[in-house]
Amino acid sequence: MRDAWHTAITQIQPNSVRVRGYDIAELMGAVSFGAAVYLILRGELPDEPTARLMDAILVSSIDHGATPPSVLAARTVASTGASLSQSVAAGISSINRWHGGAIQDCDKQLGRIIERAEREGASLEKAAAAELAEMKQRRERMSGFGHRVHTSDPRTTRLFALAEQAGKVGRFVEAAHAVERAFAQSGRALPINVDGAIGAILADLGFEPGVMNGLFMIARTPGLIAHVVEEQARQKPMRTIDPTNHAYDGPGERSLGS
Amino acid sequence: MRDAWHTAITQIQPNSVRVRGYDIAELMGAVSFGAAVYLILRGELPDEPTARLMDAILVSSIDHGATPPSVLAARTVASTGASLSQSVAAGISSINRWHGGAIQDCDKQLGRIIERAEREGASLEKAAAAELAEMKQRRERMSGFGHRVHTSDPRTTRLFALAEQAGKVGRFVEAAHAVERAFAQSGRALPINVDGAIGAILADLGFEPGVMNGLFMIARTPGLIAHVVEEQARQKPMRTIDPTNHAYDGPGERSLGS
Amino acid sequence: MRDAWHTAITQIQPNSVRVRGYDIAELMGAVSFGAAVYLILRGELPDEPTARLMDAILVSSIDHGATPPSVLAARTVASTGASLSQSVAAGISSINRWHGGAIQDCDKQLGRIIERAEREGASLEKAAAAELAEMKQRRERMSGFGHRVHTSDPRTTRLFALAEQAGKVGRFVEAAHAVERAFAQSGRALPINVDGAIGAILADLGFEPGVMNGLFMIARTPGLIAHVVEEQARQKPMRTIDPTNHAYDGPGERSLGS
Amino acid sequence: MRDAWHTAITQIQPNSVRVRGYDIAELMGAVSFGAAVYLILRGELPDEPTARLMDAILVSSIDHGATPPSVLAARTVASTGASLSQSVAAGISSINRWHGGAIQDCDKQLGRIIERAEREGASLEKAAAAELAEMKQRRERMSGFGHRVHTSDPRTTRLFALAEQAGKVGRFVEAAHAVERAFAQSGRALPINVDGAIGAILADLGFEPGVMNGLFMIARTPGLIAHVVEEQARQKPMRTIDPTNHAYDGPGERSLGS
Repeated sequence: MRDAWHTAITQIQPNSVRVRGYDIAELMGAVSFGAAVYLILRGELPDEPTARLMDAILVSSIDHGATPPSVLAARTVASTGASLSQSVAAGISSINRWHGGAIQDCDKQLGRIIERAEREGASLEKAAAAELAEMKQRRERMSGFGHRVHTSDPRTTRLFALAEQAGKVGRFVEAAHAVERAFAQSGRALPINVDGAIGAILADLGFEPGVMNGLFMIARTPGLIAHVVEEQARQKPMRTIDPTNHAYDGPGERSLGS
Repeated sequence: MRDAWHTAITQIQPNSVRVRGYDIAELMGAVSFGAAVYLILRGELPDEPTARLMDAILVSSIDHGATPPSVLAARTVASTGASLSQSVAAGISSINRWHGGAIQDCDKQLGRIIERAEREGASLEKAAAAELAEMKQRRERMSGFGHRVHTSDPRTTRLFALAEQAGKVGRFVEAAHAVERAFAQSGRALPINVDGAIGAILADLGFEPGVMNGLFMIARTPGLIAHVVEEQARQKPMRTIDPTNHAYDGPGERSLGS
Repeated sequence: MRDAWHTAITQIQPNSVRVRGYDIAELMGAVSFGAAVYLILRGELPDEPTARLMDAILVSSIDHGATPPSVLAARTVASTGASLSQSVAAGISSINRWHGGAIQDCDKQLGRIIERAEREGASLEKAAAAELAEMKQRRERMSGFGHRVHTSDPRTTRLFALAEQAGKVGRFVEAAHAVERAFAQSGRALPINVDGAIGAILADLGFEPGVMNGLFMIARTPGLIAHVVEEQARQKPMRTIDPTNHAYDGPGERSLGS
Repeated sequence: MRDAWHTAITQIQPNSVRVRGYDIAELMGAVSFGAAVYLILRGELPDEPTARLMDAILVSSIDHGATPPSVLAARTVASTGASLSQSVAAGISSINRWHGGAIQDCDKQLGRIIERAEREGASLEKAAAAELAEMKQRRERMSGFGHRVHTSDPRTTRLFALAEQAGKVGRFVEAAHAVERAFAQSGRALPINVDGAIGAILADLGFEPGVMNGLFMIARTPGLIAHVVEEQARQKPMRTIDPTNHAYDGPGERSLGS
């Protein structure tokens, strides 16, 4: 008989399911889903403000309307009569290097700036300017800065504020701000976007780059499900899905206070 | 030019992303991910105890070790050198009628019991017994009751307690308990399992059956990611994955209080 | 130790791979891929004209340009930086009830006409007219007849000619022609399309409906690969893919004789 | 209005479908599926012996029993109640760097040997020995040589014979034989396997490495479909699929002559 192989994620015993050592029944009602996501991916429970930050990161990426390729792929597959899971899987399959991937690309680029600052005993700002100059020569783009639609994304501001409250602002978030200032000094207003902010914050929280796209998948799955369910309910099978020419007809603007 | 098509989920405008009318930046840090999932799928924000219940439902299904087919499919695809999203998509593709599907099957069967009780002016218990007798003749199984591993699943007890606290116990949860009693009276101890409890609670919350498997996908995605990342980190490519002969080597038992 | 489970498809032994009993090395160079597809799905090798018919069926569906949802899904996923297999899998996932599904739907509907003719001792033409009248009342569509683009599809004519040559024209192809005549008599020119022809011919060859969509997957996979490779080579990542506004810029018209 | 984008694969006009310039209706019955695959991927029709070689390549990889990860993934997904296309897509998703990937890895490694021979004016045998020695130091494996099960694979012999007949043996096949001899001289009998042979032959035919895994997908799709259909017909949902403990119970050994 072959030797057993090992897993360190979840222990199943009769009447007991323990994730990373914690009884799921005890976690239920006691911690948010964001905290449980942190636990299963990192191995430890986060403190309370970090848990709130995790939930905020997931909420920030829950949906971005009908134009992202993950939604178009999911709706296209759904329009052929596919099941919910088959349609959602096609959406998940669209989360790759170019879609969602800015999170981990930005993280790697910020990592290089931090290393350079340490190696050269320079400020993050100088290191950022030097790195951007070299990237320009190699015709590389800095990931996580600038956005097709948003010039000043309120989600970014909110994420940085929550990271600050959680006491989790570290070298990566600092490096992100240094890049923003370096862009400004070279005459380009290229603000950090939501992907860049998430990449920097997750890195400061200690997440590995290889898992960051996974957080984007977790966050976006409810949005994909909502789009597939809407496609099934409101649209005819095999329709031609125009990727840009659509309009919002949902509830009007409202706020938590109201 | 073709007419625009419509979507009622998310409104994208420069520097504004609104889900079902709410500014995402305002939701971030103010509501949990469970609440945001409820919002995007139902169109309205839940009250505070319902939000906590939603988070608990998602936490309850975040992982169930290495044996479920979704994990085996995800690990098998990962072992061929696939990307994270490709592996996770294979896992999601395993969530169907037989895996995760008990949630919505149970919901439909409970619905028939509730209808019968109303139609015949009978108690839920009588209706349950009559329905079970007919199902036995048709050789149908009641979904959401009994479990391969767990005889008394603490997750189920916890879910019902939280539903009670949220004031959301309705006809479906009552019908589930009536089925449990009907089984006991016929001499079979077949307790509600976690899928059955989730199906009943989601129905009492007003979720449509067609979307229930979607909640299971949302809940299980972090578990799938943890398994794929572990497979990539700890195992050799193209290994033979034994579906049962594996052991847990993660952190020992611990609790929130400690 | 668990009992072995069984498979009747391929036997692997050292230095021997046998599909349905035949040594693959002997099949190679001796039979076409169409014949091997018939063998693996039906369990027996086809005769020579049937093998040629199988190849013709696969060739007929190898591609239909850039508008079908399977191609749009595959290209959309490819544009996010996905691997070839991830993109092709998204395309395959689009082959369902509404895309490719006409083949097996048509087959079932023709089956009902054949049964009715037998039951009522009527001609296929009378049975077809009666069935179409009932379907009209139930607001059902006859699958496999009419086409968005083609009014007289040369692929259909060719398929029927090859089926005739193979001596494989049976009740299903006859029923398909009876439906065509019944439509004509009711004043509608609704010719059999390529899906309808394939469905009828495969049924006369003895294929089960559940496997017909599979033949469409086999046929279309090379087309999906060609589209994904072209997307990767000619297009920028994350482009907006217009589902209709594209033009052909490949080789001009040419023929085998030239 | 946005500019049209372009595709060079298939031209759709009313009553005409042309692949790379050829009318599909003319190709049907005139060329094999292998020839059509060559046409759609390379842009030109192959000559007759090359067409036969293409069919042989596809036939050689149509199935390899129940143990490859693509089959296990497809059967696992099928066992959850997934549709045929969802199950097949999971199988396709398993064709990556480590499964099927030897074809293109081998191709790249042979390419380096050919380059070295040219650069150094050495024989392929000397270049192969030098390259293998360097790879050994870097602890790299030569892809496409040796096999878990087969020591002398009859499919490989057959492929080389058909390539010879087609007059398509070039530098890559020569390099593959040179590697085999270099292994033998260093005391290791590590014969070319079927993946290595396909990689060398496809390279001599002029296929790009990026598309070689695609040919494996085309070849294997019928096998995946046969396994999924068998799983649906013979097995219970949600069974535990033992990846190794299974036995063949199909037709006994037979040959074309009999």
